[in-house]
Amino acid sequence: MPRGTPPVILLSEDTSSAQDERILAAAPGARLLHLRDIETDAGLGRAIQVAYPSLPAGLWETTPALEWVQVTMAGVDQLLSRPEVRRHPAVITNVHIHADCVAEHLWGMALMLTRNLARAHRQQVDGTWNSGPLTSGISTLRDRWLCVAGLGAIGRRCAEIGVAFGMRVIGISRSGRRVAGVDEMVGPEARREAFARSRIIMLLLPDTTETRHFAGRDEIAACRGAYIINGGRGSGVDTEALVAALREGNVRGAGLDVTDPEPLPPGHALWSMPNVVISPHYAGVHPGYNDEAFEVFLANLGCWMRGETLANIVDRATGY
Amino acid sequence: MPRGTPPVILLSEDTSSAQDERILAAAPGARLLHLRDIETDAGLGRAIQVAYPSLPAGLWETTPALEWVQVTMAGVDQLLSRPEVRRHPAVITNVHIHADCVAEHLWGMALMLTRNLARAHRQQVDGTWNSGPLTSGISTLRDRWLCVAGLGAIGRRCAEIGVAFGMRVIGISRSGRRVAGVDEMVGPEARREAFARSRIIMLLLPDTTETRHFAGRDEIAACRGAYIINGGRGSGVDTEALVAALREGNVRGAGLDVTDPEPLPPGHALWSMPNVVISPHYAGVHPGYNDEAFEVFLANLGCWMRGETLANIVDRATGY
Repeated sequence: MPRGTPPVILLSEDTSSAQDERILAAAPGARLLHLRDIETDAGLGRAIQVAYPSLPAGLWETTPALEWVQVTMAGVDQLLSRPEVRRHPAVITNVHIHADCVAEHLWGMALMLTRNLARAHRQQVDGTWNSGPLTSGISTLRDRWLCVAGLGAIGRRCAEIGVAFGMRVIGISRSGRRVAGVDEMVGPEARREAFARSRIIMLLLPDTTETRHFAGRDEIAACRGAYIINGGRGSGVDTEALVAALREGNVRGAGLDVTDPEPLPPGHALWSMPNVVISPHYAGVHPGYNDEAFEVFLANLGCWMRGETLANIVDRATGY
Repeated sequence: MPRGTPPVILLSEDTSSAQDERILAAAPGARLLHLRDIETDAGLGRAIQVAYPSLPAGLWETTPALEWVQVTMAGVDQLLSRPEVRRHPAVITNVHIHADCVAEHLWGMALMLTRNLARAHRQQVDGTWNSGPLTSGISTLRDRWLCVAGLGAIGRRCAEIGVAFGMRVIGISRSGRRVAGVDEMVGPEARREAFARSRIIMLLLPDTTETRHFAGRDEIAACRGAYIINGGRGSGVDTEALVAALREGNVRGAGLDVTDPEPLPPGHALWSMPNVVISPHYAGVHPGYNDEAFEVFLANLGCWMRGETLANIVDRATGY
């Protein structure tokens, strides 16, 4: 049922006047609040019904009217780790606008490892032309298995690129349900066997109680010369077991956009391992990100005004 | 017409006894010579009819019976630059077994640049977790143009990967003839316009008089924020113009597996430019390369014995 009265919307980051106009076109008569308004008049906070792109930490306990928060990230583990957020009945929606850029990022990391390009780049820093040390230990992709854990939009894009490289793809999801373009799907209980046959393992898992150490000691021990690429959350990998396996060689290389602990502390063994590439958690960043996230909010605001179900509602039970 | 008498074959690199057996199965009764045989008996060289995987430099003038040389590289520019080779009437065949590995290599280089992963790797060497400097200047691929110059097996594979990343592809070939999976094809005369609209330009050209400075001063000046990836020959790019354009920004980045001069001398400006990745001419290397090349030779030897046309005959007029 369409809403009868205009909503009170908190815009917790600055918007342009053009954006404000578009919000008002989607929600005619809405009252648009900014953080400075609440700071000067604390009572206003109690009236907030919608928040974008976040609800600042202190406000969750003082916004009884809050019905919906549209956030602009995909992973909401940190948000849901706070008790006041878990207690609040507001609907949380996230965005799924990372698929292309994360797939590009993770494949870049994978190829830096399989083609020895990270090693070549360190040699470049020294200014020496010497192919000798770079031509051994190269991995080819055709007909090898790519394992993708987590078959959301990002995982499916990563699988598509793998297929373009001539790889066969085994996917791991909670349901193990068939996914178009993925050769085989299994449930998490079969992951050791999936790891054992794969040359590249891409992890795109959210941080939940079920995914902690998804690639744990036993799973990592099952790898036979695989590359592990983590674009999900650092907690998905047992870091200590990974470091040992990288030394022993049953894990050939690791590309990590996320780590555990994160940030990776200075002096950590991973920093200086020759078969590791690390990017400080920016695989999801791309130009135009904020604009795309705003479009998701606007479309959802239209749904909300018409009383329709919102897109991308976070399932508080599964945590994603 | 099948050959009546068994051929004399020079194996200029050591073969295994299993390989020798397979050669003799394809060419029953063949006489297999090794370099040491010729060294001890110079007259033997005059009887050589077939050579694999090369004919050593000094022998071209002393092998009047030579009919066919199967080489194991794709680019024969250096071979054909020698007058005694150009004068010799022997057929030269090359191999086209690089498509997958060169495509993986060049796409690895491209993504290292578009996702700032080369920069991230230099930061990793310093052991610092700091996404700040890495999140600006990222390029996305979807809906942007990929220009592929040279549409042989390698160029077509590179184009296919670009399509998987959601790019549109403009190809450049001598004929400008339509190629499956490539959105638009043009001839070399239209390359400036093709460069001007492309985000990534991949060069897969042999070294011939026509391809020297294919990306010359004017073509490079036409680029509007493109990445140039060279997997062909160094002579295809005007290095001086490239360095200037990388400084000015109309070329955003360069990934070079080949350079001019090559090897790139110590202290050359390209070594230390932040938006350049260099690999010392090994994009074509992959495990199993020698085995695949041997299969090409065996198949061709079968053709030769049956008097059929060989595969991959180098056109001495075009130089590839």
